[in-house]
Amino acid sequence: MNERSSKRRTKVLASREVVFASALQAFAELGFHGASMRDIANRAGMSLSNLYNHAPSKSDLLVELLKTANYNHLSETEWAVSAAGPKAVDRLEMATRAYVNYILQHPLEALVAHTELRYLDNDARKRLVIARDRLEAIFENIVQEGVRAGEFHTPYPDDVARNLLSMCAGIAEWYRPDGPMTRDQIAEQFAHYAVRLVEQH
Amino acid sequence: MNERSSKRRTKVLASREVVFASALQAFAELGFHGASMRDIANRAGMSLSNLYNHAPSKSDLLVELLKTANYNHLSETEWAVSAAGPKAVDRLEMATRAYVNYILQHPLEALVAHTELRYLDNDARKRLVIARDRLEAIFENIVQEGVRAGEFHTPYPDDVARNLLSMCAGIAEWYRPDGPMTRDQIAEQFAHYAVRLVEQH
Repeated sequence: MNERSSKRRTKVLASREVVFASALQAFAELGFHGASMRDIANRAGMSLSNLYNHAPSKSDLLVELLKTANYNHLSETEWAVSAAGPKAVDRLEMATRAYVNYILQHPLEALVAHTELRYLDNDARKRLVIARDRLEAIFENIVQEGVRAGEFHTPYPDDVARNLLSMCAGIAEWYRPDGPMTRDQIAEQFAHYAVRLVEQH
Repeated sequence: MNERSSKRRTKVLASREVVFASALQAFAELGFHGASMRDIANRAGMSLSNLYNHAPSKSDLLVELLKTANYNHLSETEWAVSAAGPKAVDRLEMATRAYVNYILQHPLEALVAHTELRYLDNDARKRLVIARDRLEAIFENIVQEGVRAGEFHTPYPDDVARNLLSMCAGIAEWYRPDGPMTRDQIAEQFAHYAVRLVEQH
């Protein structure tokens, strides 16, 4: 690659970042149906036709955003769990801290993933739900392990993970970076709730 | 009132119900920004100008819907608590069951209240947030009472109510009337979680 085409490639990749950041802002502010491709192009400081070079439709932008967000959230959570020892309670705390930290670092992504997924057509939504279920499965597996090992005593081993994650999703709605708690304090608080919900005693 | 004007009045009131039911469906399916007044009029089986006789704008419809939903949710919850004895744990369980039951009976309302509030302009949103805070305050007060009485031992007495209600809000997303649990079983499950979160022991 010569210098000129390398520069162009860098520029295209950079503008791809800008496109997705702009789409995320627009969806968070106006909702999927409220945001137009023109809004997104304006925020990205590019022409509408240039935006269409990046993404053939608004749905494609949302699918790409939610897919990336989900896989990043998944890998952060799995990575954290892989550092924990064999005890289910430690794994649950690590998973919860990492899951919450991701939301705290990407509150707009979490908000849009939570509220705009339902507007996608069936096929894309199904695939995204499957991807999201893999993330939930990390928690479900830890709960099952803990119950089998006699560490956890919840009477709801099949439901508790889903409900814990609903509680975490709420963070995206009330979190303010200038609020009274640091990110670590919030993550710690939710790890504490997680242990109470699975009834480790 | 003669018979004819009484009939007309009944018809106007009935169509008001239809307008709000149609607006709720449209907002749940397409989002506040995605739904147009024409969509709502079509669903209600009336002309656009007739719809404007009921509500001057789409925002007014959403504000009215969320206001009514919130006050109904509030009164159901308060009413249930007023039947409980003095023990904080009983009050918390009663409040949680009633709160959850309302969501189970009005899942679209709960969904729209949860996801579309942020699209309203500042003044209406502020007033609705105040109304919603009154509902949250029922739970906050019970938690404070329980902590003072030595019944609850949560280290997060100021936050736990909000997080419990986030968990309840998630129900509107996964609940299916033909799912494996009855409404009472779901309400019972969440009352159980509530007691674990406040750490009654």
